[in-house]
Amino acid sequence: MPSYALLVEYDGTGLVGWQRQPNGLSVQQVIEEAASHLNAGVAPLATASGRTDAGVHAEGQVVQLAVSAELPPVRLRAALDFHTRPHRIAIRGAAFAAEGWSPRFSAVQRHYRYRVLNRAAKPALEEGRVWHVPLPLDAGAMHAAAQLLLGRHDFSAYRAASCQAESPLRTLERLDVVRVGEEVQILASARSFLHHQVRNLVGTLHEVGLRRRPVEWPRAVLDGRDRRAGGQTAPPQGLTFLRVDFPEPPEWS
Amino acid sequence: MPSYALLVEYDGTGLVGWQRQPNGLSVQQVIEEAASHLNAGVAPLATASGRTDAGVHAEGQVVQLAVSAELPPVRLRAALDFHTRPHRIAIRGAAFAAEGWSPRFSAVQRHYRYRVLNRAAKPALEEGRVWHVPLPLDAGAMHAAAQLLLGRHDFSAYRAASCQAESPLRTLERLDVVRVGEEVQILASARSFLHHQVRNLVGTLHEVGLRRRPVEWPRAVLDGRDRRAGGQTAPPQGLTFLRVDFPEPPEWS
Repeated sequence: MPSYALLVEYDGTGLVGWQRQPNGLSVQQVIEEAASHLNAGVAPLATASGRTDAGVHAEGQVVQLAVSAELPPVRLRAALDFHTRPHRIAIRGAAFAAEGWSPRFSAVQRHYRYRVLNRAAKPALEEGRVWHVPLPLDAGAMHAAAQLLLGRHDFSAYRAASCQAESPLRTLERLDVVRVGEEVQILASARSFLHHQVRNLVGTLHEVGLRRRPVEWPRAVLDGRDRRAGGQTAPPQGLTFLRVDFPEPPEWS
Repeated sequence: MPSYALLVEYDGTGLVGWQRQPNGLSVQQVIEEAASHLNAGVAPLATASGRTDAGVHAEGQVVQLAVSAELPPVRLRAALDFHTRPHRIAIRGAAFAAEGWSPRFSAVQRHYRYRVLNRAAKPALEEGRVWHVPLPLDAGAMHAAAQLLLGRHDFSAYRAASCQAESPLRTLERLDVVRVGEEVQILASARSFLHHQVRNLVGTLHEVGLRRRPVEWPRAVLDGRDRRAGGQTAPPQGLTFLRVDFPEPPEWS
């Protein structure tokens, strides 16, 4: 059975996240059910580079699945993009997956963007895509605080209680905070992230942005390894899974 | 009674457009009903710089209304932004309107952006914001064709049958076509536009982008003054009313 890699975009609004859940529709379920049309009516198992939470979006999630239909990737892409309608899930690309390749374990870098709408007026065009913070944020202070978190650390202080990773050690390669018009955007890159790590980092940097806490505080939280000492978990809708790097990237059709 | 200018953003999805209609909810109705809370329960009349169609969005629509409550603009803005909830309509700014100022007649330039998602995969994150054109568009050819339409002309060929303007003469100041990643964006500026003018221009340039028609064709359509000779009316959801210029711009609070 041919194994395929898929490049997937979705709006996470109203979905329970990547993973199948008993309480609602997941991206995984929509894609697996779409793929059943190419697999003799049986939904195959789909695995993904990142198990995004409910309400989190993706521009470049990478998914693997195998189906019995032996289609060129360009036709598989079109078929799955058709069968995922009317959901806001688009199959942007497809490729044959190499033997032993895994979207999860072969990934060497994951990139996320978090968007904060930092203005007095509520979101209208960007509702469901941003965290609305009406008080002015000092993006420069947030960026300075973020630079103190780079490198390999025990990120227990930024890890959800529900996190299933064996180790809290992660290497944060990039955590940039930039102002883009009315928005403050946080760009985070690492080989892998702990559950809620990006959202907990954003919620903690937010306290620095409001000048409730000094620039050094998020690093002190890190060193204390206590989740309860940090800021809130920023809401999911501001987060987008941008892309995944692989040593040998799939050639998308 | 103090008269105010408002800077308004909205997502046009599911709305019948700016103007009140018997068949659904309009931006005008939402704003007028929000303002009734500041006007002894009576909805005042609101006028706008541009009467956007159903499904068309705005980043910087400008609106005028008068209410009996004598509030500083910063407080009026906050109150109207609150009372327009839960609609995807945001009051980004407010200012006192000068005597004789009109959002419609004082405007000297209006700016629109039209977004085409030009990729095989259906829209997911940008659904409701773009026109999906799956076949490749030649943005360079569209831009070249657009430049032949600049200046003062009889735009009858690009005017809706329902257009109520007295004259079909308009001066098109800018019509740029640019590729931005997977999108082709059309940026249009003029003192004022005829009804459906931008969408008819985009639908006609689209034929050039697909290479079904030569670069000179949209100009030949213009010169023929016959709407039936041009391309389709591009769908509303790709269009956003970006901003309005005034000789003396309101100082937004």
